[in-house]
Amino acid sequence: MAQYKAPLRDMQFVMHEVLNVENHYKSLPHFAEVDRDLVNSVLETGAQFAENELSPINRSGDEEGCGFDDGVVTTPKGFKEAYAKFVELGLGSLAAPVEQGGQGLPPSLGIAMSEMTGTANWSWSMYPGLSHGAINTIAAHGTPEQKETYLTKLVSGEWTGTMCLTESHAGSDLGIIRTKAEPQADGSYKISGTKIFISAGEHDMAENIVHVVLARLPDAPKGTKGISLFLVPKFMPGSGERNGVKCGSIEHKMGIKASATCVMNFDGATGFLIGPPNKGLNCMFTFMNTARVGTALQGVCAAEGSFQGALTYAKDRLAMRSLTGPKAPEKEADPIIVHPAVRQLLLTQKAFAEGGRLMVYWLSTFTDVLEGSESAEEKKTADDMMSMLTPIAKAFLTEVGYEAANHGVQVYGGHGFIREWGMEQIVRDTRIALLYEGTTQIQALDLLGRKVLQTQGALLRNFTKVVHKFCAANEGDAQMGEFVRPLAALNKEWGDITMRIGMKAMSNPDEAGAAAVDYMMYSGYVTMAYLWAWMAKVAQDKLAAGEGDAAFYKAKVQTAQFYFKKILPRTKAHVEIIDAGLESLNMAPEAFAF
Amino acid sequence: MAQYKAPLRDMQFVMHEVLNVENHYKSLPHFAEVDRDLVNSVLETGAQFAENELSPINRSGDEEGCGFDDGVVTTPKGFKEAYAKFVELGLGSLAAPVEQGGQGLPPSLGIAMSEMTGTANWSWSMYPGLSHGAINTIAAHGTPEQKETYLTKLVSGEWTGTMCLTESHAGSDLGIIRTKAEPQADGSYKISGTKIFISAGEHDMAENIVHVVLARLPDAPKGTKGISLFLVPKFMPGSGERNGVKCGSIEHKMGIKASATCVMNFDGATGFLIGPPNKGLNCMFTFMNTARVGTALQGVCAAEGSFQGALTYAKDRLAMRSLTGPKAPEKEADPIIVHPAVRQLLLTQKAFAEGGRLMVYWLSTFTDVLEGSESAEEKKTADDMMSMLTPIAKAFLTEVGYEAANHGVQVYGGHGFIREWGMEQIVRDTRIALLYEGTTQIQALDLLGRKVLQTQGALLRNFTKVVHKFCAANEGDAQMGEFVRPLAALNKEWGDITMRIGMKAMSNPDEAGAAAVDYMMYSGYVTMAYLWAWMAKVAQDKLAAGEGDAAFYKAKVQTAQFYFKKILPRTKAHVEIIDAGLESLNMAPEAFAF
Repeated sequence: MAQYKAPLRDMQFVMHEVLNVENHYKSLPHFAEVDRDLVNSVLETGAQFAENELSPINRSGDEEGCGFDDGVVTTPKGFKEAYAKFVELGLGSLAAPVEQGGQGLPPSLGIAMSEMTGTANWSWSMYPGLSHGAINTIAAHGTPEQKETYLTKLVSGEWTGTMCLTESHAGSDLGIIRTKAEPQADGSYKISGTKIFISAGEHDMAENIVHVVLARLPDAPKGTKGISLFLVPKFMPGSGERNGVKCGSIEHKMGIKASATCVMNFDGATGFLIGPPNKGLNCMFTFMNTARVGTALQGVCAAEGSFQGALTYAKDRLAMRSLTGPKAPEKEADPIIVHPAVRQLLLTQKAFAEGGRLMVYWLSTFTDVLEGSESAEEKKTADDMMSMLTPIAKAFLTEVGYEAANHGVQVYGGHGFIREWGMEQIVRDTRIALLYEGTTQIQALDLLGRKVLQTQGALLRNFTKVVHKFCAANEGDAQMGEFVRPLAALNKEWGDITMRIGMKAMSNPDEAGAAAVDYMMYSGYVTMAYLWAWMAKVAQDKLAAGEGDAAFYKAKVQTAQFYFKKILPRTKAHVEIIDAGLESLNMAPEAFAF
Repeated sequence: MAQYKAPLRDMQFVMHEVLNVENHYKSLPHFAEVDRDLVNSVLETGAQFAENELSPINRSGDEEGCGFDDGVVTTPKGFKEAYAKFVELGLGSLAAPVEQGGQGLPPSLGIAMSEMTGTANWSWSMYPGLSHGAINTIAAHGTPEQKETYLTKLVSGEWTGTMCLTESHAGSDLGIIRTKAEPQADGSYKISGTKIFISAGEHDMAENIVHVVLARLPDAPKGTKGISLFLVPKFMPGSGERNGVKCGSIEHKMGIKASATCVMNFDGATGFLIGPPNKGLNCMFTFMNTARVGTALQGVCAAEGSFQGALTYAKDRLAMRSLTGPKAPEKEADPIIVHPAVRQLLLTQKAFAEGGRLMVYWLSTFTDVLEGSESAEEKKTADDMMSMLTPIAKAFLTEVGYEAANHGVQVYGGHGFIREWGMEQIVRDTRIALLYEGTTQIQALDLLGRKVLQTQGALLRNFTKVVHKFCAANEGDAQMGEFVRPLAALNKEWGDITMRIGMKAMSNPDEAGAAAVDYMMYSGYVTMAYLWAWMAKVAQDKLAAGEGDAAFYKAKVQTAQFYFKKILPRTKAHVEIIDAGLESLNMAPEAFAF
C-alpha cells in the first residue's frame, strides 16, 4: 500500500496563500498570537505523526479489526501506543480551551491536523475525534464542577468521550428515543436503555470513557422537546467504581473496522444532568455543525488518500501504448498515466481533494470566528455562513470523496479489488461518511428545507453575494474570464432554481423532498466552483508576479480548468432533474414490486 | 438479510411480452421446440434453486470465505452441496450442446437462469460460470478427441473449467504475457509461468479442473499475435495423474470472498494446443462478447438484489413524518418510503434493474441467433448488434448496478454499513464487475474506438436505425409522445456527438480517449431509454386492451416516466463534458502533485 505523505505544500497554499490565516487569526482576539511559523510547525509535527505512526497501522488495523470479549474491547496492534504518543505530543489538545489545559489554538488549525491523521488512518482518528463532542458539550453546558472533573482529563487525552444518541429504532429521528433517566435523591440519575452505533464506546486506549447520553426524564414531553443530556462515566471519578454501563457487542462493519462501533447497555448507570432538562437537542445542535464538518473532512481524506495511491500506480504500471504513439519506447508498454481516461480519473480525485480541502478549511475559519471573535456581528455572519454551507460540505464532500475513492480502485484495475493494495479499504472506510452524522438525504433536506426555504432564501443570498462580489471584482481580468463567466451564470441560476422549487413547495411540501438531493449536489458543485476560481485567482496572481514555484501554480490553474470543463457540467443534469419535480416519484409503496 | 425472491413476473414480462421469445425461438432451427411452457418451467426450477439453495449461503459464504492450505482450496460451507444439486438438476448444462450431453436450450434462457443464481449468490455462481468459457473454447476449437475427453465432463458439471489469461504485469494488455509452452515429442507441451486472478482456479467442488491457458510458443511473434491456447487439466484424463499446475495462493479481496481467486503456478505442466498456433486471442475474442454480457449481468443482479433488500426495509423502517402530514398516524413515525428522497433511490434501483434485465436478455437473443440460426445474413446482423452493444452493456450496467447497490446501503442508513444486513456485501461483491473482463475505461475505448470510429459509424447506425424505426412507428401514439420525442432527439444527438468526436480524433487520437468514458455512459443512457420506451409501449398496449394485471403495467409505465424524467437528463452533462475535449486533461505526470 502507498505510504501516506501529508500534502504540506497544498495545505500551506490553502492556509497561507488562499485563506491568509495569519491575518485572519490576528483579527480574532483569542487567536491573535498564532503566526505563520507556529502554523507550519504544528503542521509539520502532525505530518510526521500521521506518516510515521498512523499510516503504517492503517491496513493492519483493518485486517485485525477490534476484538470483543465479555464487554472488553481490544483495539488492533499499535493503536494504543499511537494514542499514547498522540497524547504525549499534545496533538489532541491543540484546539481545546487553555483553561482546561488545552493549547487554545484555532479550530481551523485543528482541522488541518485532523485531515492528516484522518487520511493516514481514519479508524484510529475516530477515537480522539469522538472526544471533541464530549469536550464541546461539557465546555458549553457543564457546571464548574463537571468541567473540573471531566474536561481536564478529556482535554489531556487521559480519558476519551463518546456521544450516545442512536437507538436501534431511532437514528435520524431522535424524537423517538426511549432511554430513560430516573432522578435520584442525591441529584444524580439512573440511566437505563440501549444505545447503538457508539463509536469508541469501549476500548483499551484510555483509562476512562465519558459518555454523553441522550435520555428522557420521567415527566419529559414527547418528541424532540423531551430529551435531556447526561454525563455517564465508565468509572466513577473519585471512587473509581465501575458504573452500570457496559458494551454489549461491537458491530461487524463494511469498513473502519479498527474503530469500535459499540452497542452500549445502560443498566441503571449513574449519570449527571448536563445543561437544562428537556433541552438536550438544543444543546447538541450547537456542535452539530462542527461534527458535520468533521465528517465532511472524511470525504477530503478519501479523495487525497486514494489520489496518492492511484497517482503512484498510474506512473508505474505499464499497459498498452498511448494512442498518439509510444511515450516510453524503451519499455514493453507505456505507464497508464499516458491514457486520457486514466488522467480523467486522477484529475477528478485531485480536483475533489484540493477543492474539498479549501471548503473544509474555509468553513473552519468561521468556527474560528465563533470561538475567537468578540464581535456579535462577526459571529452572526460566521454562523450564517456555517449554517448554509455545512450541510453542503457534509453531503457533497462525502459523496464526491466516495466517488474519488472508487476512482482510485479503478486506476488499479483488478489489483484495486485486492486488499493488499489498500485502495479498496478507502472505499469501505469512506462509505459510512455518507451515512453517519445524518445521511446525504437528511443533509439535503436540512439545506433546502431549513436553511434555504425556511429563511426565504436569506442564508443562500448571504453566500451568493460573496460569490457575486468575487465575480464583480474579477470580471475585468481576462485570464479569469473562463472561471468568472460560468460562475456568475451559475450563481444567478442557483437563485432562480431556488425560486422555482419554493413556488412548487408552497402548494406541495413533498416537492422540496423530491428536489432536495439534486439541489444539494448542485449547490456543492457551484460552491466548489467558487473555491476553484478563488484558488485560480491566487495562483494566477503569483504567476503574474513571478513569485514562488511556477509549476505548482500552473498546475493549480490547470486543475481549476479541469474542474470547470469536466466536472461542473454535471450541474446541467441536476437542474433538469430538479425541474422534473415530484410527479414521477409518486409511486405507491405496493407498486414498486409484484 | 432479505431473502432473495426471483422476480418471475418481471422476467416473464421481458421474455414473453417484450421479447416474445416463443416466436423468436421458433424462427431459429436449433431452438424451434422451446415454447412458453418450457421457458416458464425452467425459470421456476431456477427460481427455487436460487431462493432455497443459494440465497441462504450467500452471507455465510462471504463471512467464511475460501480456505487455503498448501495448494488446497476449501469453499465455504454448503457450496459443494449446492453445486452437486445444481449438477443433479441439470441446471448447468441448459445451454450446452446436445452432442455433449447438454440440453441445447437457447443462451437467452441460460442468461435468465444466471440472473437468478447470480443475484442469490454471485460468488457461488462464479464456479459454474467459469466453465462456460472453457466449454465454448473447446466446443469451437477443440479436436474431436478433446471434445470427447473434456467437453462431456465439463457439460455434465463433473469437472469445471477456468480461463487463465492475466499475469501480474499483464491484465488488459495481454500482448505482454510471458507464460511459455515448450513442444514435446509426443505432441503435448510443457507449460511454465504464473497466472493471477484465476477465478475457480482451485476448489473442492468438482473432481477435476480444466484450465484454458494463454501462453507463447518458443518461436511466437511478439505481442498479441504470438499467443496460443492450451488445455491444461489438473488431473490427467485416463491416468488420473496430478499435473504440474498448482494453486500458489488465493487473493484476499474486497468482495466475492467465497469465490476463489487463485494464483496458478504452471511448472512444466502438460498442456495440449487448442486451435491454431499464435491465434489464441482470435479464438478467445469469439466468446469475449458472451463473457462480457455475463459480467454486465452482475450489474443487473446488484441492482435487483439491492432493490429487494431496500424496498423491504423502506416499507418497514419508521423515521420522521411525511412533509405532507402523517401517513401512518397510528405509529410513532412514518415508514421511510413516504419520503420522496427515499423513493428516488428505490426507483433508480428499479429502473436500472428492470431496464438492465431487458438489455441483457435482449443482447442474449442475438447470441441465440448466432448459435441457432442457419442464415448467414441473420447472423451478421446479430453479430453487428452484439459488437456495438456489448461494451455498452458491460460498462454501463456495471456502473449503474454499482450505483444501485450503493443506493441500497443508503436506504438502510447506518444499518447499511453493518454486515448483518447484507446490503454492503452487494456493494463489495459488485465492485469487481467494473474491473474484470475489461474495465469501464477499456470497454469505453472498445466502443468508441473499435466499434464506432473504426467502422465509420456503421455499427452505431445499425442501432440508431432500430431506434429511429421504433420512434417513427410510435410517433402518432399520443401516450408514447413523452418517450418518443426525447428518445428521437437523443438518437439524432448521438450521431452528431459521434461526428464531432470523430473530427477531433482525426487530428489527435487522444481526443477519443478523452471522450470515451462519457461517450459510453451517454450511449448507455440512450440505449436504456430505448428499452424503457419499448417496455412502456408494451405496457400501454396491454392497458389499452384491458389485458392482464393493470397495476403491473401502470407501474411499468410509471417507472419508464421516472427513467425519462429523473435519470435521462444525466446525458446533458455527458454531452457537455465530451465537447470539452482533451485540453483540460493534458497535465504532465509530474504536475499532478508537489
